[in-house]
Amino acid sequence: MKEQTKIRRHPERGHYDRETLDPILDEAMVCHVAFEMDGEMFNVPMNFIRIQDSVFIHSADKGRIFTRLSDGTRACLTITILDGIVLAKSVYSNSLNYRSAMLFGTFGVVDDDSEKMLVFEKLMEKLVPGRWNDSRIPNQKELDTVGVLRMRIDEFSAKVRSGPPIDGAGDLNLPYWSGVIPLAITQGNPEPSPDTPRESKTPSYLKRNSDH
Amino acid sequence: MKEQTKIRRHPERGHYDRETLDPILDEAMVCHVAFEMDGEMFNVPMNFIRIQDSVFIHSADKGRIFTRLSDGTRACLTITILDGIVLAKSVYSNSLNYRSAMLFGTFGVVDDDSEKMLVFEKLMEKLVPGRWNDSRIPNQKELDTVGVLRMRIDEFSAKVRSGPPIDGAGDLNLPYWSGVIPLAITQGNPEPSPDTPRESKTPSYLKRNSDH
Repeated sequence: MKEQTKIRRHPERGHYDRETLDPILDEAMVCHVAFEMDGEMFNVPMNFIRIQDSVFIHSADKGRIFTRLSDGTRACLTITILDGIVLAKSVYSNSLNYRSAMLFGTFGVVDDDSEKMLVFEKLMEKLVPGRWNDSRIPNQKELDTVGVLRMRIDEFSAKVRSGPPIDGAGDLNLPYWSGVIPLAITQGNPEPSPDTPRESKTPSYLKRNSDH
Repeated sequence: MKEQTKIRRHPERGHYDRETLDPILDEAMVCHVAFEMDGEMFNVPMNFIRIQDSVFIHSADKGRIFTRLSDGTRACLTITILDGIVLAKSVYSNSLNYRSAMLFGTFGVVDDDSEKMLVFEKLMEKLVPGRWNDSRIPNQKELDTVGVLRMRIDEFSAKVRSGPPIDGAGDLNLPYWSGVIPLAITQGNPEPSPDTPRESKTPSYLKRNSDH
């Protein structure tokens, strides 16, 4: 871990182990990828997947961002999961409960078709377990069209805040309510598209999802 | 709008008007701020607030990141709200429904105490409407400790995908279910901290929140 990527603010919240990192990567649907291009900073939300010791992102058309990220430029990939609003008695001690992760490094292009197919399968199964086997999987033309990039999990930090608010000693006896409002991403009832055959039932893997 | 910050992928999803941008900024609790420091890319999740034509972030200790962002370095502030998982009949046509926004620019330091206090009030009222008047507001020492940064809303783009999946013509008659699984951030029941007086009831503004 390079000195400049260490967490200095609230160092007690910093974690540098895969046991903390991997569940954050495996739960979040979207990451934000930061990089420089043509003298400008960019920060792009992307769907992503961890497989073993790498994270993968994809680009439907191998466009300008894909080209820039595949030329070896440094990038920072950040994931943030919000777990709660932390209300202290003093506004100054308010906080958010969260789990976040930052990966530092460069991307490489994934050319192997079977590896690309594995990335698409894992991406699908992360979003909706059971769906891969109930949809049309990519054909060769689609595999050729989509670009896939890999960043090895090498230099990273995770940051976690959990638990109740921590008010200063002078505020503890103030009469205000304090505590946590939990936050979670929840899935609503699946909404069939007009292209779904009328007689078809909602697949069981979707019903399981909507029971969350 | 500079040429290089225009949206080229799915240009039909791009928006460059405040009527699209502001509701995205006003709904999301967290943004991701990308910038370069000591030759490394950083991408930091932060609580933020829009007030009129600026967005504000804060730093509890005016540390290294605050110092870097206040020296005029270029930054990209990105907000992403996930609205749904879009399941097409073909994996290739899967998508996510989302509303995202990218702001490009530099930050300036907010020194005026009354403006800083307004930022803290608006931050609080965005997270939990009604809370500001039921907590201890910041004192002078706290105002002095916390750094506040402003980015004017000048160069930006928003990107929105909504609605059902769009399968290719050749896939429309496949027998698979297709449609959208809606996603939303929901608030759970407030969990009082050990410091909350036993006899106190859950404040009405929190009950309203938990009915979402």
